[in-house]
Amino acid sequence: MSPKITTELLKQLRQVMKNPKYVQEPVQAYIVPSGDAHQSEYIAPCDCRRAFISGFDGSAGTAIVTEQHAAMWTDGRYFLQAAHQMDNNWTLMKMGLKDTPTQEDWLVSVLPEGSKVGVDPFIIPADQWKRMSKVLRSAGHDLVPVKENLIDTIWTDCPQRPCKPLITLDLSYTGVSWRDKIVALRSKMAERKVMWFVVTALDEVAWLFNLRGSDVEYNPVFFAYAVIGMNTIRLFIDGDRMMDPPVREHLQLDSTLEPEFRIQVMPYGSILSELQAVGAGLSPKEKVWLSDKASYALTEAIPKAYRYLTPYTPICIAKAVKNAAETEGMRRAHIKDAVALCELFNWLEKEVPKGTVTEIIAADKAEEFRSQQKDFVELSFATISSTGPNGAIIHYKPVPETNRTLSVNEIYLLDSGAQYKDGTTDVTRTMHFGTPSAYEKECFTYVLKGHIAVSAAIFPNGTKGHLLDSFARSALWDCGLDYLHGTGHGVGSFLNVHEGPCGISYKTFADEPLEAGMIVSDEPGYYEDGSFGIRIENVVLVIPAETKYNFKNRGSLTFEPLTLVPIQTKMIDVNLLTEKECNWVNEYHQKCREVVGAELERQGRHEALRWLLRETEPLARAQ
Amino acid sequence: MSPKITTELLKQLRQVMKNPKYVQEPVQAYIVPSGDAHQSEYIAPCDCRRAFISGFDGSAGTAIVTEQHAAMWTDGRYFLQAAHQMDNNWTLMKMGLKDTPTQEDWLVSVLPEGSKVGVDPFIIPADQWKRMSKVLRSAGHDLVPVKENLIDTIWTDCPQRPCKPLITLDLSYTGVSWRDKIVALRSKMAERKVMWFVVTALDEVAWLFNLRGSDVEYNPVFFAYAVIGMNTIRLFIDGDRMMDPPVREHLQLDSTLEPEFRIQVMPYGSILSELQAVGAGLSPKEKVWLSDKASYALTEAIPKAYRYLTPYTPICIAKAVKNAAETEGMRRAHIKDAVALCELFNWLEKEVPKGTVTEIIAADKAEEFRSQQKDFVELSFATISSTGPNGAIIHYKPVPETNRTLSVNEIYLLDSGAQYKDGTTDVTRTMHFGTPSAYEKECFTYVLKGHIAVSAAIFPNGTKGHLLDSFARSALWDCGLDYLHGTGHGVGSFLNVHEGPCGISYKTFADEPLEAGMIVSDEPGYYEDGSFGIRIENVVLVIPAETKYNFKNRGSLTFEPLTLVPIQTKMIDVNLLTEKECNWVNEYHQKCREVVGAELERQGRHEALRWLLRETEPLARAQ
Repeated sequence: MSPKITTELLKQLRQVMKNPKYVQEPVQAYIVPSGDAHQSEYIAPCDCRRAFISGFDGSAGTAIVTEQHAAMWTDGRYFLQAAHQMDNNWTLMKMGLKDTPTQEDWLVSVLPEGSKVGVDPFIIPADQWKRMSKVLRSAGHDLVPVKENLIDTIWTDCPQRPCKPLITLDLSYTGVSWRDKIVALRSKMAERKVMWFVVTALDEVAWLFNLRGSDVEYNPVFFAYAVIGMNTIRLFIDGDRMMDPPVREHLQLDSTLEPEFRIQVMPYGSILSELQAVGAGLSPKEKVWLSDKASYALTEAIPKAYRYLTPYTPICIAKAVKNAAETEGMRRAHIKDAVALCELFNWLEKEVPKGTVTEIIAADKAEEFRSQQKDFVELSFATISSTGPNGAIIHYKPVPETNRTLSVNEIYLLDSGAQYKDGTTDVTRTMHFGTPSAYEKECFTYVLKGHIAVSAAIFPNGTKGHLLDSFARSALWDCGLDYLHGTGHGVGSFLNVHEGPCGISYKTFADEPLEAGMIVSDEPGYYEDGSFGIRIENVVLVIPAETKYNFKNRGSLTFEPLTLVPIQTKMIDVNLLTEKECNWVNEYHQKCREVVGAELERQGRHEALRWLLRETEPLARAQ
Repeated sequence: MSPKITTELLKQLRQVMKNPKYVQEPVQAYIVPSGDAHQSEYIAPCDCRRAFISGFDGSAGTAIVTEQHAAMWTDGRYFLQAAHQMDNNWTLMKMGLKDTPTQEDWLVSVLPEGSKVGVDPFIIPADQWKRMSKVLRSAGHDLVPVKENLIDTIWTDCPQRPCKPLITLDLSYTGVSWRDKIVALRSKMAERKVMWFVVTALDEVAWLFNLRGSDVEYNPVFFAYAVIGMNTIRLFIDGDRMMDPPVREHLQLDSTLEPEFRIQVMPYGSILSELQAVGAGLSPKEKVWLSDKASYALTEAIPKAYRYLTPYTPICIAKAVKNAAETEGMRRAHIKDAVALCELFNWLEKEVPKGTVTEIIAADKAEEFRSQQKDFVELSFATISSTGPNGAIIHYKPVPETNRTLSVNEIYLLDSGAQYKDGTTDVTRTMHFGTPSAYEKECFTYVLKGHIAVSAAIFPNGTKGHLLDSFARSALWDCGLDYLHGTGHGVGSFLNVHEGPCGISYKTFADEPLEAGMIVSDEPGYYEDGSFGIRIENVVLVIPAETKYNFKNRGSLTFEPLTLVPIQTKMIDVNLLTEKECNWVNEYHQKCREVVGAELERQGRHEALRWLLRETEPLARAQ
C-alpha cells in the first residue's frame, strides 16, 4: 500500500474554506466525519469523503483540516492501516491512547482566537454537534454549518449517488403490511403526544414501507427519508424507481386510498425545506419526534421547543421484534446458509491439503455456494476469511497483500453471511484441517463454553443484553483469558446485519431489554496476536423459556439458535466440558442433522450431507 | 401506628414561606428533602426535617409543601409505612409507578404562573438542583435558595446538632498518616491541575484525618468540612472537641509544622463564607475540585468557570482501596464478629424451641455478644432480625408492633454488623431451627450457588463490579426465580457500612473498576412475600488471582471472604451443588474452623466452639 498524495487536494480544500461562494465567512477548520446523512454504518462510495481527502478508507475516522494542519482520529483497529494510507500531510491521532487530544481540545489548541469551525450539517449527528459546539464556544470559537459540502466541491470525479431499483416485499416475508406499520407507528406517536415522526435511518425507511434496495453494499437499503404525520405520509426519494409498476402497486400510489394512507412522493433533496415548513406550521404542544442521532440539519429544522428526541425510535424498537413471518424467513435463510457452508467445509477439507486454497479463494467459494441458494441477494458484509495469524486481526478482510494460503497446520476462521430475500445471516466457524494442538483445543473449548453459557442462559423478561455478557467470558476469565469485543449485536430481517436497540456487550450502552422475537448474535472469541484467532458465532432468536417457578409472574426468556452449522468437534477438548455443555453440543448437532440434513437431501447434495453426518457424531465424555 | 397530625405545622410552614424575615419574596412551594448538608445516607435527629414535618420517617422521601397541597415522594419499600405515618393533609406520591408524576411535573401542574419554589441550598445536591431548576425555569417558575431552613424556624424542640468527642486512630489502624494522605491528595490535585479540594462527605473528612466520631448513629463520623489547598489545610468543625489533648496531638495542632501541614481549625458554620473567599480570590486556571453531589450552596460559592466536578472524589477512590493495616484490621474485626455470631447461633439453637425468643430479643442478644468483643464501638446498622414472612421484607427492622417469635417452623434471617475500632462488619445468615422443607432448601441452595459464583469468580483487572451481578442470579434464573436488589456494596474500614465507588449491581451506576484491596459485600437472596426470606451475605476482599494464562498481561482478580461464619448446612440440598461448589463450602467451613475456632478457644468459649465444629462438618455429595 502506498499512501495517497493529498498535497494538492488539501490546497484546494483550504481555498474553498475561504471562498465566499461556499462559506459566508472563511472557516479556519473543516471537519470531515465518516458518515452519511443517515448515520449509516456502511456507506455508499459517493459518501466516502473522508477516504477521498485523506486516503484512509477504514470504517471509522474523522478528519479535520485547518490552514496549517490535517489530522485524522481513528481507533486501535486502524492505526496501522491509516499510517500506511496517509501521506506526510496528515497527523494520526490515535484514539484510546492516553495522550491523544480529543478533536475539540486539539482544535482549541491550534486555532487562532475567535475561529470558525465548519462542518456539513447533514453529516454530523445532532448530539455530536451539541457536544462539540459547547466546548468550542466556551473557548471562544464557533461551530458553523456549511451547507455545501466542501469535499464535494473539489471531488471532481465523485461517483453519483446510487439510485438502484427497489424490491417489494409481500406479506409472506414481512408479516405486516406497510399500512399496518403506519397505524402502529401513529399509535406510538399518539401515546407520546407527538404529531410528526421523521424517519432518517435508511433501514427504518426500508422496514416501514416493506421495500428493499441496493444503494449501499451489503445493506439492502435505498436513499430516502420519510415524514409521517397523523394524517399524511411523505416519502422523499429520487429517481424513476417510483415509476416501477410493482412499486407503484405495492405503495398503492395509483389507488383511491383514505387520505391518511396516501403516500406523497417527493424529491430526496427536498426533505430540509419540507421539514422547515412543518416546523414553521406547528401549533403549541405539537411535537416532532426525531432520533437524537438524526443530522444537525434536520434537527434544527424543527424549533427546539417542538422537538421530541429519543435514542431509539419506535420503528427501531418495533423492527427489532420479529413477527412469525420474519422469524420463519430467518429460519429458512439460515437453513440455506448452512447448506452452503456444509458444501464449503466439505470442499475445503478436500482442497486445503493440496495447498491451493487462499483466504480469498475460500471467501469466493463461500459466496459461490451461497449464491446457489434460493432468494440469495448478496453478502451481508465483507467476508472475514483468515488463517493463522490473520485470524487474530478481529476485523480482517483478505486482500492480495495479506492473502494467506490455508494449510493443515493453521487454524482457519470464517466469519461470513448473506442477504436472502427471506432473511439475513451472520455465522463464524473456526476449523482446523489437520491436527490442532492441545492449547488450541483448550482455547477453543473455553470459547465454546462461553458461547453455550449465553445460548443456554435463562433470564427474566425485561433483562438487558449487557447483563449476559459476562456469561460468555467466565470460562476464559477462569484461566486468565478474555477477548476485547462485545458478545453480540442485533441482526435485521433481510436488513442490516448490525442493528439496534439490543445487543450483548460489556460496554453498557443504552440497550433496550431483550424480548421474545428479537434476534442477536452470540459470538465470543479468543485471539492470540501473531498466532491464531478463534470465534464461534450463531445468530440466536429470543424465545420464552419454560421454568420450574415464575417469580412475580415475570416470565423467562432464553435463546434458540437459528444458525445450524456444525461446530468442529475435532477442536473440542471434551474433558473441559460439563455434562450439560456436552449435551448442548450433541443436541445442537442433532438438530443440524435433522434440519439441514433434510435440506441437503432435498437439494441432492449427498457429499455435503455425508460431511454433515460425520461432523455431527455425538461427543462422548469420559465418566 | 397512628399518623402524625400536621395541620398546625403545615399552617406555620405556609406562614414562614411568606414571611419576609426568612424569604426575600414569598415562595409558593417549599421542598424538604431527606438528606443533610453532607448527602449522608444515615442522618442525625436534627436533620430529620422531612420526618418532622410529615410524620413519615423512612430512609428515603422528599416532601413538597405548597399553599394548597402537601405531597410526599417515596419508593416501593415505604408505600405502606408512609401511608400509616402521614395524616390526610398529605398526598402520597408512589415513585416507580407509571402514573406518578415527577416532583418537577407535579409542581408545574399545581403552581400558579411565575411561582418561586424554595429549598435549603445546603441540603440539595448541586446535580439535583441543576436538573430541577431547568425544568421549572422552562415552565416559567424559579427554583430559589432559601438560606434559613424553614423547617428549623418552626421546629421549636429540634434536637441539637450532635458534637460528640472524637476518636483518634493511630498508624496501626490506618496504615497511613493523615499527613501522607494529604500529600497523596495534593498529588492527585496536581495531576488534574486543581488548586483546591473541598471535602464535603463526612466519611471522607473522617478518613482523611484518621479521626472518627459518633455524631450519626451507626456511622463513626462527625460533622465537619475540610478545604485542602496546595499549601493550606482548613478543618471546619464545632465544639470543644478540638481542645481534647489526644486530638490536638494527633493533628499536631500545637507543634511547629511546615506551613503546608498546619491545620487551621475553623467553625463548622463558616465553610460557606470561607469558600466564597476562596472563590473570589482565584486566578484564571485555578480550579476547585468538588463532588458533583456536594450541596448547591457550596458549589455556587465557586464561580462556574473555576469548578472541577467529578462523581467520585480522589478521597472516595483512595478510601475504597484498603491498605495492609486496614485489611488486617478488617480481618480481626470479622473474626471477633464470627465469635459473637457463633455464640448467638448456639444460644438460639437452645432457646428458640422454648418459644421465648422474639426478633427483638435475638437482635439484642446479637448486640450483647458483639459488645463483649475487643474494640467494639457500636452496631454498623439497625439489625434486620426477621422470621417467617417478616424475612421477605428486605429492609425489615423489628419493632414491637411487628415483633415475631422465632420458632422451629420458620426460617430466620439475621442481617447485622458492627463497628469495631479495627473494622466494620456486615453479615447475613439464614437458618432453620427445625426441619426446613425441600422447597426452602432448594431456594436456599440456589442463593448459595449465586453467592459462591460471585465469591469464586475470577475476572480481569479493570472489571467493574456490575459485570459480576448476573453470576449471582444465574442459578435462580434457571428456575425462574430472582431477587429485586443489588448483589453487593462497598464497605468502609471502621467507617460507613455502605460506601462507594464500587459495588455489584444490575443497576449500571457509574461504578469504578474493582481493584485489589477493595472490600464489598456478596449478598444474593430470595424472598417469597408472606412466607420467608433468604439471604447469604459475606464481606469479601478483592485479591489478585493466580491464573494459568495472563492475557495482555492484565492480571486477574478474585475475592477472599473476610466473613467467617458457618453457612447452615441443614439448609443445603447437596445434590444441587456441583463438585466445585461443594468443595467451596467445605473449604470455607474448614477456614471458619481454623481461624474462628482458634479465637473461640483463646476466648475460652467452648460451647460455641463445639457448635462451630458441628456446623462445619464437611458436606458429602452423592457420586
